[in-house]
Amino acid sequence: MNEDTHVSSEHPRSESIRIRERVTRHVETKVLALAGLIAHGRGEAFDYILGEETTPPAKKAITAAAATLLIAERPVLSVNGNVAALCADELVELSEATGAALEVNLFHRLPGREEAIEGVLMEAGAKEVLGVGGAASAKIDEVFSDRRRVDPRGIYAADVVFVPLEDGDRTEGLIRMGKRVITVDLNPLSRTAQYANITIVDNVVRAMPLLVSEAERLKGEAPEALREIVDSYSNVEALSDSMRIMVERLGELSKKGVYLEPHDL
Amino acid sequence: MNEDTHVSSEHPRSESIRIRERVTRHVETKVLALAGLIAHGRGEAFDYILGEETTPPAKKAITAAAATLLIAERPVLSVNGNVAALCADELVELSEATGAALEVNLFHRLPGREEAIEGVLMEAGAKEVLGVGGAASAKIDEVFSDRRRVDPRGIYAADVVFVPLEDGDRTEGLIRMGKRVITVDLNPLSRTAQYANITIVDNVVRAMPLLVSEAERLKGEAPEALREIVDSYSNVEALSDSMRIMVERLGELSKKGVYLEPHDL
Repeated sequence: MNEDTHVSSEHPRSESIRIRERVTRHVETKVLALAGLIAHGRGEAFDYILGEETTPPAKKAITAAAATLLIAERPVLSVNGNVAALCADELVELSEATGAALEVNLFHRLPGREEAIEGVLMEAGAKEVLGVGGAASAKIDEVFSDRRRVDPRGIYAADVVFVPLEDGDRTEGLIRMGKRVITVDLNPLSRTAQYANITIVDNVVRAMPLLVSEAERLKGEAPEALREIVDSYSNVEALSDSMRIMVERLGELSKKGVYLEPHDL
Repeated sequence: MNEDTHVSSEHPRSESIRIRERVTRHVETKVLALAGLIAHGRGEAFDYILGEETTPPAKKAITAAAATLLIAERPVLSVNGNVAALCADELVELSEATGAALEVNLFHRLPGREEAIEGVLMEAGAKEVLGVGGAASAKIDEVFSDRRRVDPRGIYAADVVFVPLEDGDRTEGLIRMGKRVITVDLNPLSRTAQYANITIVDNVVRAMPLLVSEAERLKGEAPEALREIVDSYSNVEALSDSMRIMVERLGELSKKGVYLEPHDL
């Protein structure tokens, strides 16, 4: 047990449970909507099947994502409640490494939520956060939820948008607007994973620090070298490889049949 | 759109989203703890991989479960927040069809939660609900959470316990106590799925009505015929078959590669 959690570190799922308690606490701070907890659960299940580690296709996608953000003219990092709850520090670091703006973008714009997320980002060191309150004055016609409201200085004018843990309608809307879209999504079959230009099939908690360090590593490279990385990346291939890894892992687990025995029985 | 939801029935995930809104509303009624929303999300992901339909091995498990409840001497249906939110009516029907007692059993015994769940069951027609407040006075030594507290008239003295959507520690505790355990769990690899004597790998929303009608259909059968059904059932086989179906389905989906196209693009 530690003071942060009720869960013994010997529990077979202790890491997953600690992250779970972290997102749950952020419902009280208003950072997370209740629907965000359900989405977190979906991610847990896909991560379990993925093997809870960053795969080779995810690493390729992370490198391509870093290069894309670095050569973008107006990159924006779109922040929702789940991402803010899980990796506010890394979002600020990524923003600093790539020059991308941070914009709060929510499916459910409940009173106080944008401000709560802005607060979490500011606390993590952000200097400016777009998309809060009246600043989200532009509308994406292609999207039908509060998430259509975007900041004219941010997503509306962006060429590249990083939208981790995004919903399908929104991703589709951004693609239709001609944005290049980078996402993090544990389900390679989701509409977001399928529509995005670059899909990092990984847990955002593992992917974000890697994305930050890739951005820092590639920062000094010439634009042509970065362009070459982006051009040689195939999202279809990365998605197929991720799917193959999940199918293989599920297949291996299933071959074991009943593989658990109650302790000491 | 309908008055019950914000979601158009044409949305690709409308059924799943309606159920999601139902469980979310039950956080306000205190029936569901926040952790229950995350668990719901995990189930959604596994159901998606399963194909969102009741499979042949699940049907076999449902028949075996109905027969087991009918020949039990002291069967108990253990009710947590998620199950109460999703299928209170069917729990009461199953209790009536099999003579099983209803007992509230929670991982998180927050003030008012037991009473909220009791209320939902009473509203669905239950005459008696065990395990509420001081009634949960016995302890299962094998379990380390509020869920160890059980009713001496119910789970403590039961020979068969139906524990849908249960956590692994608890299921393990019940097995150690010598109970026969029936569960509903969408993840055939979970500890609960693996430890239980009968595991229905299905969405509880689909499985419960089928379990009720199986119990009603088998009610008039002789005990020997019911015993024969139970004896010929193999949970290892049912779990393996469920896993195989999931692996095959994930494999089929992956072969399609990028199978979605943005509408009308």
